[in-house]
Amino acid sequence: MLVLNQAEIMQSFSMREAIDADKEALALYSKGQASVPLRTNIDIPSQAGQSLYMPAYVEGQTPALGVKIVSVYPGNVEKGLPAVPATMIVLDPFTGIVKASLDGTYLTQLRTGAVQGAATELLARKDAKIGALIGTGGQASAQLEAMLTARELEEVRIFDINYDRAVAFAKEMAEKFNCQMIPAKTSQACVEGADIITTVTTSKVPTFSAEWVKPGAHVNGVGSYTPEMCELPKELFQKADVTIFDTMDGVLKEAGDVMVPLDAGELTLNDFTGELGQLVNETITGRTSAKEITVFKSVGSAVLDVVVANKIVEKALEKGLGTNV
Amino acid sequence: MLVLNQAEIMQSFSMREAIDADKEALALYSKGQASVPLRTNIDIPSQAGQSLYMPAYVEGQTPALGVKIVSVYPGNVEKGLPAVPATMIVLDPFTGIVKASLDGTYLTQLRTGAVQGAATELLARKDAKIGALIGTGGQASAQLEAMLTARELEEVRIFDINYDRAVAFAKEMAEKFNCQMIPAKTSQACVEGADIITTVTTSKVPTFSAEWVKPGAHVNGVGSYTPEMCELPKELFQKADVTIFDTMDGVLKEAGDVMVPLDAGELTLNDFTGELGQLVNETITGRTSAKEITVFKSVGSAVLDVVVANKIVEKALEKGLGTNV
Repeated sequence: MLVLNQAEIMQSFSMREAIDADKEALALYSKGQASVPLRTNIDIPSQAGQSLYMPAYVEGQTPALGVKIVSVYPGNVEKGLPAVPATMIVLDPFTGIVKASLDGTYLTQLRTGAVQGAATELLARKDAKIGALIGTGGQASAQLEAMLTARELEEVRIFDINYDRAVAFAKEMAEKFNCQMIPAKTSQACVEGADIITTVTTSKVPTFSAEWVKPGAHVNGVGSYTPEMCELPKELFQKADVTIFDTMDGVLKEAGDVMVPLDAGELTLNDFTGELGQLVNETITGRTSAKEITVFKSVGSAVLDVVVANKIVEKALEKGLGTNV
Repeated sequence: MLVLNQAEIMQSFSMREAIDADKEALALYSKGQASVPLRTNIDIPSQAGQSLYMPAYVEGQTPALGVKIVSVYPGNVEKGLPAVPATMIVLDPFTGIVKASLDGTYLTQLRTGAVQGAATELLARKDAKIGALIGTGGQASAQLEAMLTARELEEVRIFDINYDRAVAFAKEMAEKFNCQMIPAKTSQACVEGADIITTVTTSKVPTFSAEWVKPGAHVNGVGSYTPEMCELPKELFQKADVTIFDTMDGVLKEAGDVMVPLDAGELTLNDFTGELGQLVNETITGRTSAKEITVFKSVGSAVLDVVVANKIVEKALEKGLGTNV
């Protein structure tokens, strides 16, 4: 078994490669070549925690098989441990033998950033120059990297409900990426005039107003992944020309910002264009003019984990990275 | 993460310890302190295979959490690989963090042998001297070891539909264990007069006749774990004074030798005494006289895997065994 930690994954696999892997994963998913069983949740009452098991399999030229194990243990924070530890177990799809174990926390960041990068690449205007990032939590850095990989941005405005955090994050990111990072005092100052807007928070109310979104902009909603959460205002879906989900099944079952207005009759299924995999497969059309507003909503899928993890393992083996036991 | 191969598990943990661990696991299960979600099966059509995910959690003084990953790839045999490769992933129940990976094939053999050992210890006559083992496949050695751990047998008769295999197995086991091993030419010669009878085959028809089972005998049915399989004759359940299952749920859903006569009305639920965990918890009674015939039927449970694996990891850490990554 090959064991890969975060540093080894980073050395093995770039955001560019992750974006391509996510596109391939969702293309296979939308073609019906992926098997993603219902996640298994085990409650751990004594720790007020949960342990989640997310296996998946994709067919295709490079099939992939594995299971991501994610635990949600809020009490870990007091112990100085991650609240949501995760491990990805990769199997060889040709033999069914476990072949690798990966840091699942970093894998999740990478594939979640990358799926937004894939959407941004497929939907945003090619000449996009100004980015907006709302939220500076654990996923923010990968989201920023994905935006910068998808488009050559000149500046990214950073907003957080805690302005000091936005300032600190902008400073840190300016050292990492060759792009101007501007902390924004308000969500409006962040979003208005931006070409690409990405929101990645745990908010339960919209993180910006649809009025601030300019014609031609592309918006990514990454944070809301439960029915109680909401980042994207319903008016945005009404205003958007193209709305794409990572998986239709996932978003309609998990994303509060989509489910609540649908249930209320303020949106209908006709307001949604289709899946990102369909865009990759060219069975649907994305942006058709420079003035259109495009929206991408993601809740994640185990299919992203298995495909990206499988490719990371291949690369790590090529490069001789990781520990073999 | 601690990685343990078969040799390291064998050095860490004895059959005696596994029997005690299985008793504890089933005692917690029967008390309702175990969470064993439905197994997730993924079909792998291109390999005519399946990939199975079996997570479980038990509460108690020493809680345990983990998932066994088992793949069924018949084509592996041609490749010189195991047809049913398995890996056990153990999590720390207090933090949700993956802490170990174990050879799941050996773990399965060990805990499956041990659950029979637990039943034999709780149900067989204390003065049992003659054992009978039907089937000499991959599980047979651990089954034999469990019988010999539970009772001081003087001889064990070995039967296999291929007599040469029985001879070879008896020879091999005679070198390993301090007990006479006698290959039997017929199932009847194996079973008649035996105090403890264990059948561990993939048979679809009963592997012996209930008539051959003497008063006072204890019978273990270990092999049949699908509705199509059958090892124990229905007449045995009718003749038995005590019939115990590892888990009621599991046996009633998976064991053909129990399900078929139940469906046909040849047996009723009243013919079954209860679960092994209830025996351990002393909420039901097992053997009450030297003349009674007792029967144990097992199909296995993920609860055995997590409890045994968790204890193996503890012991391996104490003894400094395995590879830490």
